[in-house]
Amino acid sequence: MRNLALLTDFYQLTMMNGYLKHNLHNNIMVFDLFFRRNPGGSSYTIITGIEQAIDYIENLQFTEEDLNYLRGLDFEEEFLNALKNFKFSGTIYSVPEGSVMFPGEPVLRVKAPAFEAQLIETALLNIINFQSLIATKASRICEVTEGEPVFEFGLRRAQGPDAGIYGARAAVIGGCSSTSNVLAGRRFDIPVVGTQAHSWIQAFDTELDAFRAYANSYPDTCLLLVDTYDTLKSGVPNAITVFNELREKGYEAKGIRIDSGDIAYLSKEARKMLDAAGFPHVSIIASSDLDEETIHSLKMQKSAVNGWGVGTNLITSSNCPALGGVYKLSAIEKDDQLIPKIKISENPDKITNPGYKKVVRIYDGDNGKAQADLVMLEEETIDTNSPLTIFHPIYTWKTKTFTNYRIREMLIPLYVDGELVYPRKTVTEIKKYAAEELNSLWPEYKRLDRPQLYKVDLSKKLWDLKHSMVNTYKESQKRGSL
Amino acid sequence: MRNLALLTDFYQLTMMNGYLKHNLHNNIMVFDLFFRRNPGGSSYTIITGIEQAIDYIENLQFTEEDLNYLRGLDFEEEFLNALKNFKFSGTIYSVPEGSVMFPGEPVLRVKAPAFEAQLIETALLNIINFQSLIATKASRICEVTEGEPVFEFGLRRAQGPDAGIYGARAAVIGGCSSTSNVLAGRRFDIPVVGTQAHSWIQAFDTELDAFRAYANSYPDTCLLLVDTYDTLKSGVPNAITVFNELREKGYEAKGIRIDSGDIAYLSKEARKMLDAAGFPHVSIIASSDLDEETIHSLKMQKSAVNGWGVGTNLITSSNCPALGGVYKLSAIEKDDQLIPKIKISENPDKITNPGYKKVVRIYDGDNGKAQADLVMLEEETIDTNSPLTIFHPIYTWKTKTFTNYRIREMLIPLYVDGELVYPRKTVTEIKKYAAEELNSLWPEYKRLDRPQLYKVDLSKKLWDLKHSMVNTYKESQKRGSL
Repeated sequence: MRNLALLTDFYQLTMMNGYLKHNLHNNIMVFDLFFRRNPGGSSYTIITGIEQAIDYIENLQFTEEDLNYLRGLDFEEEFLNALKNFKFSGTIYSVPEGSVMFPGEPVLRVKAPAFEAQLIETALLNIINFQSLIATKASRICEVTEGEPVFEFGLRRAQGPDAGIYGARAAVIGGCSSTSNVLAGRRFDIPVVGTQAHSWIQAFDTELDAFRAYANSYPDTCLLLVDTYDTLKSGVPNAITVFNELREKGYEAKGIRIDSGDIAYLSKEARKMLDAAGFPHVSIIASSDLDEETIHSLKMQKSAVNGWGVGTNLITSSNCPALGGVYKLSAIEKDDQLIPKIKISENPDKITNPGYKKVVRIYDGDNGKAQADLVMLEEETIDTNSPLTIFHPIYTWKTKTFTNYRIREMLIPLYVDGELVYPRKTVTEIKKYAAEELNSLWPEYKRLDRPQLYKVDLSKKLWDLKHSMVNTYKESQKRGSL
Repeated sequence: MRNLALLTDFYQLTMMNGYLKHNLHNNIMVFDLFFRRNPGGSSYTIITGIEQAIDYIENLQFTEEDLNYLRGLDFEEEFLNALKNFKFSGTIYSVPEGSVMFPGEPVLRVKAPAFEAQLIETALLNIINFQSLIATKASRICEVTEGEPVFEFGLRRAQGPDAGIYGARAAVIGGCSSTSNVLAGRRFDIPVVGTQAHSWIQAFDTELDAFRAYANSYPDTCLLLVDTYDTLKSGVPNAITVFNELREKGYEAKGIRIDSGDIAYLSKEARKMLDAAGFPHVSIIASSDLDEETIHSLKMQKSAVNGWGVGTNLITSSNCPALGGVYKLSAIEKDDQLIPKIKISENPDKITNPGYKKVVRIYDGDNGKAQADLVMLEEETIDTNSPLTIFHPIYTWKTKTFTNYRIREMLIPLYVDGELVYPRKTVTEIKKYAAEELNSLWPEYKRLDRPQLYKVDLSKKLWDLKHSMVNTYKESQKRGSL
């Protein structure tokens, strides 16, 4: 495990040192991690990276080298000693990894001494922002391929090694069947795939020689790249020759891959040629700057592709390369009471929800589909024997009443008083859970273009608290007493 | 150092195994690493990541766990043994890190046994693509700020830990003065900066209390975040109060930071208030979803900002989150001769330049500015005592003749027969070199919007080779003999 103790913004350290100097370092603070917008046209975000957030906290310790470096930046010994003895002692609630979540609701909640809560902000955001981004992108691509496998091929264009490794993990959680990234395969026990590149074809005197050599090495998993010279005039005919030779030896070929040209036309023509030659079961894999839009367009044109290799656009989430997750103070403990805190902004979207909160998902009692989420104060309860009416937090006249419903609290304990209590999960388990989560959404929320927006409302009590705090602020502003 | 031996695409392993089975693994292959388009509207790319590419090669070894994993994927012992003994034995030429390069020219050239050249493709691309992308983005942002410092603040939105760490490194090479990323600061000995977040302000009963506490902890480096409540009505007046208190104690405040609202208006008003209060030297730092376009627009409106914190848009290169670097076979050794190889494509841009090549930069003999690059075969020479005429590789009637010029070979040895011969450099040295490189470009090539395109031509000999190979291919295609 890597030591990422210094993977933080410098201002976290200056603040921690400041809290220590003012003896505020043990004051308990509550931070909510949430995002304000879904990425890249999605109506939801799959929260991913929780396992790596745990790894980060479990391995959090400042080495002598770390401390020496900070000493060189003029931090004093008292602070360095506090870092030397750093151990996370707080309580973290989080949604289970793979949960489908929506803007404005806490997806992770930290309650910890100021000194600790502040340090971990940056790494938590870094880890969860990126993986959630990629899992969400992958889920949208997989939604478009309607069950046809999507292969994550982006390592060479990923934003550094971690982006390739964790991006592959997130892509599989979001629905991809496998990755080309061998290290990700080893680390997370996810399937790896790959056959040959153009360089293999070029390394032989002719394409046919190259195909034969490959088939000879991998007779039972033979998939051939057919676009090095000319897909329809050379690649597919040569592939058919080799597939026939394999069949004579008792092997069945697996497929062809097309990496350039007009995928719709080439795949349909290749399909006809393969079918006519007696290879109707051979797959046609495409890989050429694909994303959900292009795949959708190719499928509209009835391309014959039935496996999709997606690289750059998936691993970087190219149409939206960052999820803007934030980590905002929502309460401070004083005399054993949690005092709600709010961040005011001229921009109404940026005013935070104060207090120690939870998220409740409301499911239809009959079909089990998710209907809406309600952000509430921790102490609030819902009596599911009574109807539940929720209202839009801005257009408050927009209400909805549920009679036959069940509820679920989305935040579960990750750490309690510094102890890890979350059951660690494999990628396979998380992927399965994410699929169930996606399945709990009506298709309207998963539409590629302009999906329906999912309701996230505030409980009456939270709404009242927020508005009274905004009003108090406006009053104090008038009095000039900030 | 991390073991990244498995940071490769699975098809590299299947090809390597195939080469081994066909006894082709020791055949010498030449690959060019190049890119086809500059990122995000730039007319150049700063090649960055060479030091990490070296780290990768130096640490390349397959552990028992790696081999066990591959054994589980059904690779045979002969292949696993070859991996176990893997040591890079080839020759790599590269441009010095920080070089300004252009589309279509090799920036790194690998000549190595097929087994080795193939393995390292993915990691080299991953490392160099990302860092070059960010260094280039940073240089464009710094070009717009015209010498005012740019702070890299993107860690929380970076695509994983490495993207934050190596992105900060690349940003500094591209021109940023410092980063908020403490781990990057430690790893690369680059300056780190940061003061306080909104949570610090909220942790105290009033903004003034929070400012006083911070000033008290950091009297000689006091920079205050003024937008938590109301920048002009509360933040700046409170900051001035504290700056005056500091002055009474013999300290001078450093600045204020504005993180929201209309930066042009707020900074100009804040400047007036600070000047009127006797603090004309206090900096105004802005940080709020900035990028080169927004900064340019703010400067057009004469904002009073004189330091720029740039986060998400820099660390992800949000308008172009991937540099599309590729690694293409250009020659194969046969009977001690390098036989040129070409990759044909329907798309003329994707036809590769064959042969063992070098890149020569032509500088004006008087002013030292870069005039054009020429891609040539390795064995070619230029007699700088004679005029040099170059021609456009497509519109061949477009020619240019140099009389007073000097030339420079851009590719220098990194590895010779497996031995590292490149002098390792610090980030400070690389940053200085990159600045010199940028300085060798006319401003027209560095314009934010639609910069002039820099000439990259082929030597007559290379152009002839390429066209004769394309023609040979067309002939063989007609004969149906591929």
